[in-house]
Amino acid sequence: MIVVMASRAQEQDLKRVIDIITEKGYKHSLYHDKNQYIIGVIGDVKGQDKQQLEACDEVEKVVTVTHPFKLASREFFQDTTVINVKGIAIGGSKMVVMAGPCAVEGRDITLDIAKRMKELGVSVLRGGAFKPRTSPYSFQGLGREGLDYLKEAGDLTGLPVISEVLSPEDVEMAYEFIDIFQIGSRNAQNFSLLREVGGTDKPVMLKRGMMNTIEEWLMSAEYILSEGNSKVILCERGIRTFEKYTRNTLDLSAVPVIKRLSHLPIMVDPSHGTGHWRLVAPMAKAAVAAGCDGLIVEVHPDPENALSDGQQSLNYEKFESLMEELKPVARAVGRSI
Amino acid sequence: MIVVMASRAQEQDLKRVIDIITEKGYKHSLYHDKNQYIIGVIGDVKGQDKQQLEACDEVEKVVTVTHPFKLASREFFQDTTVINVKGIAIGGSKMVVMAGPCAVEGRDITLDIAKRMKELGVSVLRGGAFKPRTSPYSFQGLGREGLDYLKEAGDLTGLPVISEVLSPEDVEMAYEFIDIFQIGSRNAQNFSLLREVGGTDKPVMLKRGMMNTIEEWLMSAEYILSEGNSKVILCERGIRTFEKYTRNTLDLSAVPVIKRLSHLPIMVDPSHGTGHWRLVAPMAKAAVAAGCDGLIVEVHPDPENALSDGQQSLNYEKFESLMEELKPVARAVGRSI
Amino acid sequence: MIVVMASRAQEQDLKRVIDIITEKGYKHSLYHDKNQYIIGVIGDVKGQDKQQLEACDEVEKVVTVTHPFKLASREFFQDTTVINVKGIAIGGSKMVVMAGPCAVEGRDITLDIAKRMKELGVSVLRGGAFKPRTSPYSFQGLGREGLDYLKEAGDLTGLPVISEVLSPEDVEMAYEFIDIFQIGSRNAQNFSLLREVGGTDKPVMLKRGMMNTIEEWLMSAEYILSEGNSKVILCERGIRTFEKYTRNTLDLSAVPVIKRLSHLPIMVDPSHGTGHWRLVAPMAKAAVAAGCDGLIVEVHPDPENALSDGQQSLNYEKFESLMEELKPVARAVGRSI
Amino acid sequence: MIVVMASRAQEQDLKRVIDIITEKGYKHSLYHDKNQYIIGVIGDVKGQDKQQLEACDEVEKVVTVTHPFKLASREFFQDTTVINVKGIAIGGSKMVVMAGPCAVEGRDITLDIAKRMKELGVSVLRGGAFKPRTSPYSFQGLGREGLDYLKEAGDLTGLPVISEVLSPEDVEMAYEFIDIFQIGSRNAQNFSLLREVGGTDKPVMLKRGMMNTIEEWLMSAEYILSEGNSKVILCERGIRTFEKYTRNTLDLSAVPVIKRLSHLPIMVDPSHGTGHWRLVAPMAKAAVAAGCDGLIVEVHPDPENALSDGQQSLNYEKFESLMEELKPVARAVGRSI
Repeated sequence: MIVVMASRAQEQDLKRVIDIITEKGYKHSLYHDKNQYIIGVIGDVKGQDKQQLEACDEVEKVVTVTHPFKLASREFFQDTTVINVKGIAIGGSKMVVMAGPCAVEGRDITLDIAKRMKELGVSVLRGGAFKPRTSPYSFQGLGREGLDYLKEAGDLTGLPVISEVLSPEDVEMAYEFIDIFQIGSRNAQNFSLLREVGGTDKPVMLKRGMMNTIEEWLMSAEYILSEGNSKVILCERGIRTFEKYTRNTLDLSAVPVIKRLSHLPIMVDPSHGTGHWRLVAPMAKAAVAAGCDGLIVEVHPDPENALSDGQQSLNYEKFESLMEELKPVARAVGRSI
Repeated sequence: MIVVMASRAQEQDLKRVIDIITEKGYKHSLYHDKNQYIIGVIGDVKGQDKQQLEACDEVEKVVTVTHPFKLASREFFQDTTVINVKGIAIGGSKMVVMAGPCAVEGRDITLDIAKRMKELGVSVLRGGAFKPRTSPYSFQGLGREGLDYLKEAGDLTGLPVISEVLSPEDVEMAYEFIDIFQIGSRNAQNFSLLREVGGTDKPVMLKRGMMNTIEEWLMSAEYILSEGNSKVILCERGIRTFEKYTRNTLDLSAVPVIKRLSHLPIMVDPSHGTGHWRLVAPMAKAAVAAGCDGLIVEVHPDPENALSDGQQSLNYEKFESLMEELKPVARAVGRSI
Repeated sequence: MIVVMASRAQEQDLKRVIDIITEKGYKHSLYHDKNQYIIGVIGDVKGQDKQQLEACDEVEKVVTVTHPFKLASREFFQDTTVINVKGIAIGGSKMVVMAGPCAVEGRDITLDIAKRMKELGVSVLRGGAFKPRTSPYSFQGLGREGLDYLKEAGDLTGLPVISEVLSPEDVEMAYEFIDIFQIGSRNAQNFSLLREVGGTDKPVMLKRGMMNTIEEWLMSAEYILSEGNSKVILCERGIRTFEKYTRNTLDLSAVPVIKRLSHLPIMVDPSHGTGHWRLVAPMAKAAVAAGCDGLIVEVHPDPENALSDGQQSLNYEKFESLMEELKPVARAVGRSI
Repeated sequence: MIVVMASRAQEQDLKRVIDIITEKGYKHSLYHDKNQYIIGVIGDVKGQDKQQLEACDEVEKVVTVTHPFKLASREFFQDTTVINVKGIAIGGSKMVVMAGPCAVEGRDITLDIAKRMKELGVSVLRGGAFKPRTSPYSFQGLGREGLDYLKEAGDLTGLPVISEVLSPEDVEMAYEFIDIFQIGSRNAQNFSLLREVGGTDKPVMLKRGMMNTIEEWLMSAEYILSEGNSKVILCERGIRTFEKYTRNTLDLSAVPVIKRLSHLPIMVDPSHGTGHWRLVAPMAKAAVAAGCDGLIVEVHPDPENALSDGQQSLNYEKFESLMEELKPVARAVGRSI
């Protein structure tokens, strides 16, 4: 941590700030730059200490230079984490495709989709039972009933199942039914929920908040990891920008950045990342080329009648083509799919 | 809702889309613009129908022209809502100041702050018992114990108390202790939590999500309102932008926009909105001039030793000056404070 | 400047980087934090040296801690700059209102507006002769002819005149006709143009680029100042964010930030900053309360027939009311208008 | 264009607005939705007419539903434009790589880089003679002298040369020396400059402004096209967002969006798009997989001593590896490189 004193700070101000730093138990290193005192604070700095120093009248600003995440960092664990779930390895050389409908809509359709996904080479079945919707008047998911169908579909096909949980209460209920917990973008900093899934032994796929920096995202992962659950999968799904044509801006540079900063596997969601089915295929290919560990894609047999996110869902035919097109791209970057 | 057909769409495509619209029970109005068919869809359109139409191959885009919120809109309720809590009117001609520490740190300090806030003309005591922190290693609040101190401070001074709840479970527990529930920026789209506070009879102050449009924010209010709780107070607290000097960009234009679109009262938080104590006073004055219904300000007797947000907290002396400076500004816009 | 070495860096890597720093003529201070070497580089660091250090394999990142602007900084010039133009002082205790149409549309209308602005207490007449329009098919301004009308209007009323220049060639031509050069948001980093106006002796009002940080904005001011022209007036006019209701997000916190970092006067443009005439009055009052040195407002006798920006222009009647409403707000913060 | 009346609008208000629309020469189509009148305006609507309608008191908002660009649109020209320059086809099935240093630093180094780029399969040599730098104290380029070296390097190797122009004056001077004009991000809405290059017969590569929507970017292309120059190449180079780890956020979804909206070829710049040499290779591969028509990459023999952008430049060795890695990715999407 670097403390930059105001240019008008006097020696006694400097002394006072150094006393505070010392009282908090840190060592320091002092230097002078362009008429300003600059203090390097050595040690594992707490956020609260940073804020307190910023509260001092004579301090111009405080800059952190090291990453605040620990368990999520590549320094902490230098290998790449591979997460196994029902025989599927997430983070290995074979990329993983998770696919299925945005929302679970009924029993028959769910079983039908699951069988079709299995045939097309999908590794994990996705489907929402609890849906976070901007409007209280939109379809909110089938809840417990949806979990039943998902479990039946998973049992039938042997596919592990991923589904989103929205509140701490959902976690215990969903535990019996699903194989991977998904934390959605709007809950990326719902810390009660992060702690709850951190207390389980099931993998958690943590989507990036649409307003979260990569550092904050890794801090959310840290919440899960620090509760003892080491099976965290990250998922880039687009951030919010001024561009209006796409629903979000899919930040594919997050893939190589995460690969450098962290040992955790990273998936990409080109469906939410773009919001338009026409953009899903090119962005899926781009994500694979960028080096992600897999994709999560919305597929629906009849998007024009989907109860949620029809505009960004692929039908079976388009999804089948995409699966074929992804193979040579994966091979081109030394992976398989 | 307006459906814009792709310019390559043929008559049979148009017919198919109009059939879908008719089946869904909407009327329509058709016109032609620049070689494109454009269909005006009449009726109270569901979000899912919009998404389904966007899923059609021949549809270029779908544009909504009316607001999706109802109970929150000024069309629904043309007067301005005034919310009364223990004798304080929020939304009336007298602006309300809520103030207190970011986090409740202990019994004595909380009682001390409460007494001081009362003396300085504050209307509502704020204080966090459950703290949403980016890092799992930061101080997370005193929880239930903190609520005890807040209640005692409220009883002692007669000030109503506002405090943040982070998960649906917190709501029942906190109900006995506090007078206003606060929903924080990171939970602005935590719909389980919104529904939970919507099921109570206490006022809820809903902060704008740092990445939420004004429309999304009003949709979050709609979640609370649609559960039957009409006592919603909005609070602008800064949005996330590319600017790095400030922690957030306080969007004061949200104040007159909300006044136009909605009947709900709107507060402004210049502490989180800027992240620097030096900017709190000028932005508080600006917020009052923009026409807000009140302010929520972080105050701490000793910001350099605050357990949270010291960098943006005012000490007693600075806060006292601010309270004095606000009075003529409020008068200048025909209000009092 | 702080150089943070990669955590995997060895001692010889460190030595190599320190050698580079030394060769470039800087002193340094070394310390160790969380298994990382951190090097404080002392001296007036050039941007190119920063980039070169970032190019080193073993360097994780480079952080600058001091401001890159000099002549624009309050350290350089501790008083507040007051710029005089034809008897008007910009940056003094009396706030300045610049007003007029977006575009100069003809001789009669320009003279009429000028007279009316004078009567209503405006200090500077604004009007665009060269219009930067997103579309090549929109009205591009009257050019030289527009400058003629502006000059005549200025001569008639005694009001100094401000108008935008779009390219270096415009500067020489416009020099005879106008009193203040305006640099628009889209040209905030048009460095050829900044140098050109920096070579003149007339005041320059530099609008913030809609995507510029405050630091970059001050660096653009530095371009003008470093050419020898010390008469730079800053103008906040809104930045681009994800919010869609307003055309831009007016960043009023820039006002107190600029007041702290720089000695230059700062104006606010609530017309472009919001894009809606309904929001101009509340945001103008907020800007005054935040401590700006003046406002620039679009006024048109008949906004429904304006050739540019009618949607954000006030008619005479609304502008007259605004001028009245601003007075008590200015007084409330110890200024006049 | 859709005009949404305020919900409080009366019949006489509606009549007045319809009269305005009729007077302006448009036809209209009226419908009623949720207590609001909505007017579909038919015809090729001018921006100024939109603004004037927004200026009406009774109008809530005006929404455009068709694209404002014409010559740049795929409706106007349904084939894909291929631009030929000295035997290189930009926009064809073979992807084009433009590479070279950020800034031209001297004669020998420029000739050396050019020869090396030629050997490594590069199609176009890039190099900056005029450098737009945030700081007036940074290296600003060699100017005319740099153009000399570029021309010599182009003649020696047979490579066409691309270089940035910063102001209208540069265009005439640079015309003799270079084969493709580059318009940089900061000048993406410098309309004087756009018109100037639009008046020449040489290809223009137009970078996306870091704050420009895709629609605005195409409007800037429209400026060039409408002057008669049909040889416009688009280049995505990253937009500005809240993320701090990367210099910009490379918006690869712009590639398929542009392919849908426009017939113009689109390049990607992964060097500026990320700002870190470590991220250039993965994002270059992702861009190719997304379907771009080529890449522009910063290469320098010794990035640690580059006079500009060393932090994002590849050295020869890393660039050579990248060229090899790109080939199978291009093949995977049915292209060559």
